[in-house]
Amino acid sequence: MPSAPHGRRLDAVPGPFTPRTPRVVAARRLQRRRDREATGRFLAEGPQAVREALARAGTVVELFGTPAALDRHADLAARAARADVPVSEVTDEGLAALAETVAPQGLVAVCRHLDVPLDTALARGPRLVAVLAEIRDPGNAGTVLRTADAAGAGAVIFAGDAVDPYNGKCVRASAGSLFHVDVVRAAEPVAVVAALRAAGLTVLATTGYGDSDLDDLADAGRLAAPTAWLFGSEAHGLPEELTAAADARVRVPLHGRAESLNLAAAAAVCLYASARALRRPAGQRGHTAGESAG
Amino acid sequence: MPSAPHGRRLDAVPGPFTPRTPRVVAARRLQRRRDREATGRFLAEGPQAVREALARAGTVVELFGTPAALDRHADLAARAARADVPVSEVTDEGLAALAETVAPQGLVAVCRHLDVPLDTALARGPRLVAVLAEIRDPGNAGTVLRTADAAGAGAVIFAGDAVDPYNGKCVRASAGSLFHVDVVRAAEPVAVVAALRAAGLTVLATTGYGDSDLDDLADAGRLAAPTAWLFGSEAHGLPEELTAAADARVRVPLHGRAESLNLAAAAAVCLYASARALRRPAGQRGHTAGESAG
Repeated sequence: MPSAPHGRRLDAVPGPFTPRTPRVVAARRLQRRRDREATGRFLAEGPQAVREALARAGTVVELFGTPAALDRHADLAARAARADVPVSEVTDEGLAALAETVAPQGLVAVCRHLDVPLDTALARGPRLVAVLAEIRDPGNAGTVLRTADAAGAGAVIFAGDAVDPYNGKCVRASAGSLFHVDVVRAAEPVAVVAALRAAGLTVLATTGYGDSDLDDLADAGRLAAPTAWLFGSEAHGLPEELTAAADARVRVPLHGRAESLNLAAAAAVCLYASARALRRPAGQRGHTAGESAG
Repeated sequence: MPSAPHGRRLDAVPGPFTPRTPRVVAARRLQRRRDREATGRFLAEGPQAVREALARAGTVVELFGTPAALDRHADLAARAARADVPVSEVTDEGLAALAETVAPQGLVAVCRHLDVPLDTALARGPRLVAVLAEIRDPGNAGTVLRTADAAGAGAVIFAGDAVDPYNGKCVRASAGSLFHVDVVRAAEPVAVVAALRAAGLTVLATTGYGDSDLDDLADAGRLAAPTAWLFGSEAHGLPEELTAAADARVRVPLHGRAESLNLAAAAAVCLYASARALRRPAGQRGHTAGESAG
C-alpha cells in the first residue's frame, strides 16, 4: 500500500475533499443533534480532541484534515492510519464546513458515541460522580464535565432533558474530558438518584437554599464517602423532586455579597471539596495519603 | 413637580426616547471602550445590575427603561427618582439600541466608573484579593469577579493589559459583583505584587506547573493568612515575571486525566480554599467560627 511520510493511506485520498464532497456533506450533518442521534456519531475538532479520541480504541470513524494540518500533526495521522481509520484530506473550505469554530486548527474527527449505560458505569464503583440534571447550556455542561474529570470523578451523568453531550460546544468545553470519564445519558433523573443510592453513593443536591453548608459537611467528615453531586441549571436550579430525593441539600457558603455562584464555579468548589475529602480524610491531614479519588 | 405613581419625574420624560434621540445615541457609545475611557462611564443592563448600581450612592447617572419595565420595576424607578437620577422612558427600539443582550429586560443604567486606586483598596485591609493578570476574555474576568465576591474577597485587581472591567460582557458575567467589591485597575502587574506584599498579603500564583499543591498548602495552614491570588489567562497563563515574584507557585491538583481546569473553575477552587482557611483555621474544624473572610 502506498503511504505518505506521515503515514496516511494514499489510496483513501483521491484528492482534497471540498464542502460538496458527499462524505464531507454527510459528516457536516453531525452538527445537528437529530443526525447525531440517528447515526450514533459526532464530531470532535482540533488536535487535542482528536488525540484524546484516537486514544480510545474504536472511537474514531474517520479523520479529516487539511494537508497542512496533517503534516503538522503527522503523529495523529500516523496513529489513525495504524488503527485503520480512514484519513481524508480536505480543502480549507471543506474543513471550515466541518468545523464550528473560527480557528479549528485543521483537524476534525468523526467519532462514535461513547456513552455507557448507568449500570455499567456504576458497576465500576466510581467514588465521585457528577449528575447534570436538565442542564441545557452546552458550554456549562462541557465545563462541568472537564472539572469533574479533573476532580477525579469516574462518571458524569447527563440526566433528564439535558444538553446532548455530543453537542459541538459541549465537546469543545470538555477539553478532551468527554473521552476520559464514563459518560451516561439517562432520561429519568429520579431513577438515577435511586440507582446511585443503591450503588452505595451518598447523593448531594446543590442548591442556594440548601440546609447543609458545604464546609460543615466537610468538617463533619461527611464528604469522605463515595458521593454523587447533583447540579441543576443556573437559571432554574434543580427540579424539586430531585432535591427532595437527595440525601442532603447543600449550599456553597457565600461570604461576600454575591447572590450566587455560576454553575461552573459551584461545581468546581463542590467536586474539589469531595476530591480532597476522598483523598485525605480530615483525620489524616498533614500526611500525603496515597489513595486517589474516583 | 408632577410625579407618576412609580415616582419617575415626568418633567424629565418628554416622551419615550428612540434610538435617534441624542441622549440614547450618546449612551449607546458607551458600548465602546474608547468612549467609556473618555467619559468615565459605562452601561449596566437588567434589573439586577440596576438594583446593585442604585445601591451605591452616586453611581447611576441616568436610568433608561421601557414604560413596561419601569412599571414592572417601579421600586427601582422610585429609588432612582429619590436619588435625583433622571429616569428616561425609551421605546423598545431605543432600549434594544442601548442593550447588548437579546433579552435585556427593559432597563439600562448609565453608571460612573467605580474603580479605586490600589492604595485605597489595600488601606481597607482586605484578607482575600484576586488579581486578574492580562486576562482578556470579559466573560472569564466577570465570572472570576463574581466568584471572588462570593468567596469574600475585598478587592479584585485588573492588572496589566487586562480586559476593561466595564466591558458589557464582563459587567453581565459579574452578576452585580462589580458593584460589591473594590475594583482596581493597575497597569503594572509586578508593581501590584510588590504593593500586595508590602500590605502584608501572601501572594500566590496559580499555574499548572506550580511546585506547591493547593491541598498541601491548606493542610499546612498556609492559607489562613491574608492572601492575594494571581490568575492568568487560560491560553497563556501568568507572565513569568509574575510567577517569579509571587511567594509560591500553586497548582490545583488534577486527580483525573484532564490536563487542566478552565480559569473560572481553578479560581473558584483556589478562592474557596482560602475562604475556608480564613474562616476556619485547620485547628478549629468542627466548630463554627464566627469570623468571615475578606
